[in-house]
Amino acid sequence: MDIPVSPLARPFPDLPRIEGVELRVARAGYKDWDRADLTLVRLAERTSLAGVFTRSACASHEVESGREQVKAGTARALVVNAGNANAFTGSRGRDAVEAIKAQVGEQIGCDPAQVLVSSTGVIGVPLPVERAREGLSTVTKAEQCGWKEATDAIGTTDTFAKGASASAMIGDRRVELVGIVKGSGMIAPDMATMLGYIFTDADIASDFLQEALDRANETSFSCMTVDGDTSTSDTLLAFATGAAGNLRIEGWDSAGADAFAAALDDLCRQLAQLVVRDGEGATKFITVRVSGAQSDESARRIGLSIANSPLVKTAIAGEDANWGRVVMAVGKAGEPADRDRLSIAFGGVWTARGGQAVEDYDETPVAEHLKGEEIDLAVDLGIGTGRATVWTCDLTHGYISINADYRS
Amino acid sequence: MDIPVSPLARPFPDLPRIEGVELRVARAGYKDWDRADLTLVRLAERTSLAGVFTRSACASHEVESGREQVKAGTARALVVNAGNANAFTGSRGRDAVEAIKAQVGEQIGCDPAQVLVSSTGVIGVPLPVERAREGLSTVTKAEQCGWKEATDAIGTTDTFAKGASASAMIGDRRVELVGIVKGSGMIAPDMATMLGYIFTDADIASDFLQEALDRANETSFSCMTVDGDTSTSDTLLAFATGAAGNLRIEGWDSAGADAFAAALDDLCRQLAQLVVRDGEGATKFITVRVSGAQSDESARRIGLSIANSPLVKTAIAGEDANWGRVVMAVGKAGEPADRDRLSIAFGGVWTARGGQAVEDYDETPVAEHLKGEEIDLAVDLGIGTGRATVWTCDLTHGYISINADYRS
Repeated sequence: MDIPVSPLARPFPDLPRIEGVELRVARAGYKDWDRADLTLVRLAERTSLAGVFTRSACASHEVESGREQVKAGTARALVVNAGNANAFTGSRGRDAVEAIKAQVGEQIGCDPAQVLVSSTGVIGVPLPVERAREGLSTVTKAEQCGWKEATDAIGTTDTFAKGASASAMIGDRRVELVGIVKGSGMIAPDMATMLGYIFTDADIASDFLQEALDRANETSFSCMTVDGDTSTSDTLLAFATGAAGNLRIEGWDSAGADAFAAALDDLCRQLAQLVVRDGEGATKFITVRVSGAQSDESARRIGLSIANSPLVKTAIAGEDANWGRVVMAVGKAGEPADRDRLSIAFGGVWTARGGQAVEDYDETPVAEHLKGEEIDLAVDLGIGTGRATVWTCDLTHGYISINADYRS
Repeated sequence: MDIPVSPLARPFPDLPRIEGVELRVARAGYKDWDRADLTLVRLAERTSLAGVFTRSACASHEVESGREQVKAGTARALVVNAGNANAFTGSRGRDAVEAIKAQVGEQIGCDPAQVLVSSTGVIGVPLPVERAREGLSTVTKAEQCGWKEATDAIGTTDTFAKGASASAMIGDRRVELVGIVKGSGMIAPDMATMLGYIFTDADIASDFLQEALDRANETSFSCMTVDGDTSTSDTLLAFATGAAGNLRIEGWDSAGADAFAAALDDLCRQLAQLVVRDGEGATKFITVRVSGAQSDESARRIGLSIANSPLVKTAIAGEDANWGRVVMAVGKAGEPADRDRLSIAFGGVWTARGGQAVEDYDETPVAEHLKGEEIDLAVDLGIGTGRATVWTCDLTHGYISINADYRS
């Protein structure tokens, strides 16, 4: 099946080189396709590592291994296999991951425990170890490539390559952050969703990097959803090479810590929004702003209940300001709400206020807004000061077409 | 929009008359349509009442009023308005419900507190009180009608009328149970879903009727889902007229209590399955059987996670035995699971066992099974003895068509 490029796609941006990061890709042939599907990222010695992973109870071996590796806090290489998730493959899956780690450790001369592995694609088919072995031999000798090539090589059903950058001043040193991400379906939050990799030349202790990544994840990947389905392989990793030579950030008291964390927040938000823009079948990018909730967390849950509701998502696909369905989604969230204080706006126009329809609201700008590609849906609970912003896309025939056929 | 009759529809069965129940319908004109949309059910004196309602935090006035009325345990009349949900309509919605209760109380000579009201349809438009008033005057004088006419009159986007019956022996008396139900979208469990009404001539104390109804709801309406969306008006009511003259059932120790409860379980299961069969856009009826879970409740949650997964539902629409997506849905359920003990079968053929694909399973009967209309999906967790059965339907282009256009 040929999936057309998302109408919400963004061009791949110019991204800076990150000192201490070397990108290479090769064709291992995990599927019968004519494209690079194996990515090897070599990292400078003493690169700090942080990560967040899927909360799936059926996570892949890659995820289980990654969770352990993150505890040590350093990495020398990352391998990404595209086309095969190597999930639900029993001991053969585990063996494949360990073989890759051993081979890369030998090839670049590092402890296999410092080699991170991700795999993405079909579930249930063991990763062909022989292809991985040959691919790794090839990729080690390949020329270095750019961000776009690496991003293309980690993609599967993605319809466009997704990357972003940010920077921060730490003392007098400017540090750069680059992130690349893949994912378009099986996307739900409540964790780091999809595969995402962030590289920075900042010098940062891994404990602080983990703290900043957890925080950034909260307001980015944990605030977006495409279909409410959660992958067995979701992984978000951050690598800090230290090549910028800034005064090392050890904690929130270190100079530049806030600036770095803000840049990381910004980068993660950009990446999360790009994933939504590649949501399967998406034709509209929806920002759900919840305010007046009992707490920020309650606002986030209500936002996700709205963003995951098939009836809300199909209404927006049909360009219908159906705030009744929004009321329904607020009501089912299981969070504190008072029907008679609830207000709802589309594109900044309040269509319902204090638990009732606004009878004489001007429908023209609302209808105009809903015809666009960027939809703004605001919900005020009127009971507190909690707020959250959540991103999602509409639910269309495209989603059904893509998912009733994929794999067959 | 003309929605075709569900391919999974069942013919309306012959249902017995329930002594002490009088059905009448009329056209109030809640929408601009040429059909009966107001139903009045008169009930014998001392009819016992039980009910379960939506857990939505934004429930309608009908639901709020019903919750109070159920506590008293008796009812003399039920009014159902179709075409307008009267939800999210502020004090005008409340006034409309109270006006209906008062008028019916006067017309049939009973306390208004014994008149139950349900409304279903579009959210946010206050019920037109004048039309209700005139409709009630008309309906009181109308000839009695049968179950089919009443079921048609409570429907909205339903594509076929849904009713069922059961019976039980209490001592030497046979008691009859009849249920009618409406609903096809905005259907999720975790409560009594949609509008459902059960009538029996059994003589039963309302406390026991409530207990039996709660229990029946657990394994029927709480075990089915169409789209995971939960209405603001979901209501399930049971009325027992006592006309059968059986020895009154006061509790589980009373003669015939188990038989009555079993019949009620059976009736609720039939009705719940009929709602799934009218799921918006449904082409396949899916039974998800979960076994080997840590507890029955855990099995139910895992079953619902599978049954609500858009990726599982689209895979089945595409007749694809994509057990990888089932693994994903088990993993995201937030319930205890061990990836390496998980087994999955389609149509009785195990395609995955103990955390791995069964490599040489016979694909022919599986493919054949998936082409059919009745899909059986079994998941064994392999970690306990908890089990549950959950029903859902596939997710198709029909769902998108119906919901991207409804109301516009």
